[in-house]
Amino acid sequence: MREDLKLAQRQLEELGKEINLDEKVSEKFYAFNKSFQSILQKVDRLESLIEVSQIVNSTLQLKELLPLIMESTTRLMKAEASSLMLIDEGHFVFEVAIGEKKDEIKKIRLPITEGVAGWVAQNKQPISIKDVTLDPRFCKKIDKEIEFVTKSLLCVPLLIKDKIIGVVEALNKIGEEGFSQDDLELLQAMANQGAIAIENARLYEDLKDLFFNSIKALVTTIEAKDPYTRGHSERVMKYSQAIVSELNLPDDEKETIRLAGLLHDIGKIGISEAIIRKPDRLTDEEFAEIMKHPTIGAEIIKPIKQLQSVVPGVWQHHERYDGGGYPNRLKGEGISFLGRVLAVADTFDAMTSDRPYRKGLPHQRALEEIKEQSDRQFDPDIAEAFLKAYEDGLIIP
Amino acid sequence: MREDLKLAQRQLEELGKEINLDEKVSEKFYAFNKSFQSILQKVDRLESLIEVSQIVNSTLQLKELLPLIMESTTRLMKAEASSLMLIDEGHFVFEVAIGEKKDEIKKIRLPITEGVAGWVAQNKQPISIKDVTLDPRFCKKIDKEIEFVTKSLLCVPLLIKDKIIGVVEALNKIGEEGFSQDDLELLQAMANQGAIAIENARLYEDLKDLFFNSIKALVTTIEAKDPYTRGHSERVMKYSQAIVSELNLPDDEKETIRLAGLLHDIGKIGISEAIIRKPDRLTDEEFAEIMKHPTIGAEIIKPIKQLQSVVPGVWQHHERYDGGGYPNRLKGEGISFLGRVLAVADTFDAMTSDRPYRKGLPHQRALEEIKEQSDRQFDPDIAEAFLKAYEDGLIIP
Repeated sequence: MREDLKLAQRQLEELGKEINLDEKVSEKFYAFNKSFQSILQKVDRLESLIEVSQIVNSTLQLKELLPLIMESTTRLMKAEASSLMLIDEGHFVFEVAIGEKKDEIKKIRLPITEGVAGWVAQNKQPISIKDVTLDPRFCKKIDKEIEFVTKSLLCVPLLIKDKIIGVVEALNKIGEEGFSQDDLELLQAMANQGAIAIENARLYEDLKDLFFNSIKALVTTIEAKDPYTRGHSERVMKYSQAIVSELNLPDDEKETIRLAGLLHDIGKIGISEAIIRKPDRLTDEEFAEIMKHPTIGAEIIKPIKQLQSVVPGVWQHHERYDGGGYPNRLKGEGISFLGRVLAVADTFDAMTSDRPYRKGLPHQRALEEIKEQSDRQFDPDIAEAFLKAYEDGLIIP
Repeated sequence: MREDLKLAQRQLEELGKEINLDEKVSEKFYAFNKSFQSILQKVDRLESLIEVSQIVNSTLQLKELLPLIMESTTRLMKAEASSLMLIDEGHFVFEVAIGEKKDEIKKIRLPITEGVAGWVAQNKQPISIKDVTLDPRFCKKIDKEIEFVTKSLLCVPLLIKDKIIGVVEALNKIGEEGFSQDDLELLQAMANQGAIAIENARLYEDLKDLFFNSIKALVTTIEAKDPYTRGHSERVMKYSQAIVSELNLPDDEKETIRLAGLLHDIGKIGISEAIIRKPDRLTDEEFAEIMKHPTIGAEIIKPIKQLQSVVPGVWQHHERYDGGGYPNRLKGEGISFLGRVLAVADTFDAMTSDRPYRKGLPHQRALEEIKEQSDRQFDPDIAEAFLKAYEDGLIIP
């Protein structure tokens, strides 16, 4: 409790002591004191809510947001655990946070009509149960699955404009028999804020999907003009992601590499179809044309502010670590990280894909070639990460 | 004030009346009463904050969000007006809301070092000024520009992780000489919530820009293969937007039409370059190939969930209102609204652009043709909306 509230509390106690306690005064004093205590609790609750509001609105990433909502629930409800279920195609998708053990968060699917959560979703009303063993709505199989024993339970709906999108539960009030009416009200108010934050995060992720899927659709269509490179960009994207995840890089690097993988050959739109689709080996002039595609690709995306970080990858994916690549004969660390990653991913896919004039290499041969070219065509650390990713089963065409 | 608080207030008054007011008791009673009144105000403030939190997080659109923040400021501060300034390239971009007159919101640019706002931005600290005429930091020219006389002023920073992104001001406390310390604290707390909401809205709009700009870059590049259609899709997008704004449609329709305009010819990727770039008139077979592009375009975007609403536009932009179009000889209202809009926009741009085998028509001739084809090639309402948009100066290539 904050200082100003504690002060008022002390002042009231002192006043109580001073008051000449005839029956009438004492009655009024106790009546007021009761109201006052509930106001203090209310202030506490309101401050918690504001704190929760700041926390839940601090991210637009669902995978960060859902744990934040559950942590706040566990902490403010003084509960042993909490769970959050979102409705997805007639099912609850279940996330559980048990106490401090964040690793115990598990995903479970549950029909939307089942359990206490089902009742809450159907009735769009919160519920408090002191002892779940006495309530036939309670669904025991989840306790079994997550190795937990539920005693008391609060369950409130997550509503967006009167539409139910899920429920939040607080499980087992610590040190008390069950949750209070105040707990229920606070949890519902928190859930209302959580629902808005979830809605915003979903809009954001939806837009992100739209963006990625649209780029993917256009790239795929452009590639489809050459049957021999069909799916190439998406594979390069996946291989590059695998390399990056071997290297344990942060999440925003992963998004950049996804885009760079998808877009690395986009400059081929600028090369004549006659050359792109030519079934025979290319002449020197034709090859000089093809060698323009990294630069053309970089030019295409350069005007887009948010794609600046992708430009070096697209531009440099044909540079070689030993300086013998194109278009700028860059060398070693002078080639951007993205360029060095894409070079390995791109080459592996090119080697293992069929061409009009040759069959693709078997994977083992291509892996040997990658090893062979380490420190020559490729950055040795990245070549190694690729080989490790292959061993770990992350390189799936 | 809510019922429970009013009740406590009454109870305390009654207690006060009963108490045998010897000096010592009375002193303690008044001390407590003072604390109690400030707690009541605190509850009020906290409830306002929670309300503001729900309001500001209810949208990810900046142009909806900023007025919401200002309305909340004016209302909760009991101010005559409020303003919000966001920092953009060393300047404040200024929005003002004067009382109920929302139309008076104006945009002004101001160097980031000027005025009270400049001081707040530099010091990252809130400020309360009882009489701005006595404060040399106050910048009079804005009052002049917005025809307003500022007397008292509250100005607080908008901070995101200690980085200043702007300031919020409340102007002229209604019925009082100036704002209180409590007002200042509440406004700062509101600004903290507002800043988070602004940050989220910016992330969302940034992603939206990225999406549109990427699509535009790819479409432009694809078009660049045929110098005679360079810029066509972007113009069709603009013309279609102009038609839609004549028809006063809601904002999400406008986004759909933007995308449909940009993407309407995307299916041309699927047509051989030899046909697309052919400088002479096409043979019947070649024209039959070209006629596939609406269907190919629809196929490309169909797999993308969020582009479902765009599919009919792309598919049907070559249908004719009288049923003589392609690929499906749809007729009248059987053609989607988007298809009927794109048909007019597309035809106008095709008529007015040069082709290898002919010069583009002058605008007036093309407008006559649109009128002529009303109820034949085109939906008459949409043809009319286009002509009106042209008159209104909205059709700018």
